[in-house]
Amino acid sequence: MDEVGIRDVAALAGVSVSTVSNALNRPELVSRKAATRVAEAIAELDYVPNVAARQLRAGRSNAIGMAVLNITNPFFSDVVLGAEEVAEEAGYSVIVGNSYDSVDREARYLSLFEQQRLDGVLIAPVGESIEMLDRFRRRGVPVVLIDRVDTSGVLPSISLDDVLGGRLAAKLLVEGGARHLAFIGGPLRVPQMRERLRGCREIVEAAGARFTFIETSTLNPQLGREIGDRLSALPSGERPDGIFAGNDHVALGVLQSLISHGISVPGEVSIVGYDDIDFASAAVVPLTTVRQPSHDMGGNAARLLLGQLTDRHDPGLRIRFDPVLVTRQTTR
Amino acid sequence: MDEVGIRDVAALAGVSVSTVSNALNRPELVSRKAATRVAEAIAELDYVPNVAARQLRAGRSNAIGMAVLNITNPFFSDVVLGAEEVAEEAGYSVIVGNSYDSVDREARYLSLFEQQRLDGVLIAPVGESIEMLDRFRRRGVPVVLIDRVDTSGVLPSISLDDVLGGRLAAKLLVEGGARHLAFIGGPLRVPQMRERLRGCREIVEAAGARFTFIETSTLNPQLGREIGDRLSALPSGERPDGIFAGNDHVALGVLQSLISHGISVPGEVSIVGYDDIDFASAAVVPLTTVRQPSHDMGGNAARLLLGQLTDRHDPGLRIRFDPVLVTRQTTR
Repeated sequence: MDEVGIRDVAALAGVSVSTVSNALNRPELVSRKAATRVAEAIAELDYVPNVAARQLRAGRSNAIGMAVLNITNPFFSDVVLGAEEVAEEAGYSVIVGNSYDSVDREARYLSLFEQQRLDGVLIAPVGESIEMLDRFRRRGVPVVLIDRVDTSGVLPSISLDDVLGGRLAAKLLVEGGARHLAFIGGPLRVPQMRERLRGCREIVEAAGARFTFIETSTLNPQLGREIGDRLSALPSGERPDGIFAGNDHVALGVLQSLISHGISVPGEVSIVGYDDIDFASAAVVPLTTVRQPSHDMGGNAARLLLGQLTDRHDPGLRIRFDPVLVTRQTTR
Repeated sequence: MDEVGIRDVAALAGVSVSTVSNALNRPELVSRKAATRVAEAIAELDYVPNVAARQLRAGRSNAIGMAVLNITNPFFSDVVLGAEEVAEEAGYSVIVGNSYDSVDREARYLSLFEQQRLDGVLIAPVGESIEMLDRFRRRGVPVVLIDRVDTSGVLPSISLDDVLGGRLAAKLLVEGGARHLAFIGGPLRVPQMRERLRGCREIVEAAGARFTFIETSTLNPQLGREIGDRLSALPSGERPDGIFAGNDHVALGVLQSLISHGISVPGEVSIVGYDDIDFASAAVVPLTTVRQPSHDMGGNAARLLLGQLTDRHDPGLRIRFDPVLVTRQTTR
């Protein structure tokens, strides 16, 4: 099959090749009418601007933009580190925007990345909408999702089987004798939180145990301490005896609070975290957790992105890691 | 005194006002000869391009670039968070470059920030050279140093009295009975490491105790574990009984290793960290440390930067925090 090229787009749109190029790369130079015709022609021809199109651009930034949910969470800073290592070898810098669980902040970072004509975007998205990301793709700027799968199958991604992760955590707690299990997690607009919840709930229901969902708007140690304080204040009959925390960051706060209130972990309450950050094994009681290979996930995401920048890798490639349970001392 | 303006610079350089503006904001449009004359006129008149000059620019990015030493160190991610909060309120985004203790990487980030015409730069510099930073300042792009003081007095800064921090840590160890004190830190091109070492050494020498300096090229938990393993293998008479770690990140690794080798902390070895990151209090043995107000340092740095963007604050302002010793359970 003949490759659809920029000339075909120009012909169908009835504009010059340089107008198509401008529409892709310097949209501010093109009239709204011309831009619409180009966009329609691109859609009709299913034209994907490629390396050649990108090379038409005046300047390359040699930089990749990376938007993460929370840079203070070591899981994400490890993902960043893994991506940086791979990008650096290929001569690219990575600049990071911390969305901090805010859709607005993420949107501002994406606008900035677009305006700065970065060569590619790595993103752990806050919400589910990937419209903004599609804009990059249409302009030939590759995007790779981290810790998220594009259900429409268009964008490549690096993710983890979070339903399995939820099941592994809950299974360990239930098998250790927990009769009242709590999941601490959120916000629920983040699909991986919903998946961890789903996997956990499945196991708990099958075991006929009691289930409590403590929904949060974010996950950090401070919040973990607050939740731990509330749980500690409950009569022991009302208190969950198994806690699955949405990430290690919040799990460590819960652990710290319970211990400070004289509640034995895992004697009275077992805890499982998620991520296996560096501090999990160094905690007061070393934390049992569901390991995500954060550094490798970042490195593979960068590799997928660079593959699109240098060759023409299949842009639909998805890599899905399986989580691994790391049993330490917060579980029976 | 009359304010020196862009017209004065143009008159002295014998070029038009718009050439001066271009030299400051779009140097690529100006001949080398004209650029040199403008630079000489700016130096002679001691002209500091100000808000008005910046407003001559075609587009504002509404973004601030931030370069930090190691984003996986919670001290720096907290500094970033503090800066983001303040910047966001003023309508600015912060994008982060992780220098990872590399002079080359830092230089690439600074070039990128310059090329992207960011509105300001916050930086915890890797080395001591601030030549590159001076280039921003000459173009009217404000720069604020974090965790570093510009000895020439030109750039504003937010820093901590690290000599005092070193003294506080060593004093606690010596008073707790340590007779052989080790400082783990580096690289020594980072002035705050030299200062912590200096403060520590002063106290140890005054007390007539033995001193060992374990110099490192970076500081992270993995390295801490390796150093801990080496110290654990020593006969107890050769092993330091007081450890002052250059940051909590490395201290937690040392602590974890010693405990895993059955060495009692603080029974046989006392440990003091630096920073008071969130995980310090949640460690196996809660870590005694020298607290840096990371979040406030980031916030204040952003405020100094924004002050220069919106008004004309004294660009030489330096804010120096005093460290506070937080005594927990790794010291006697």
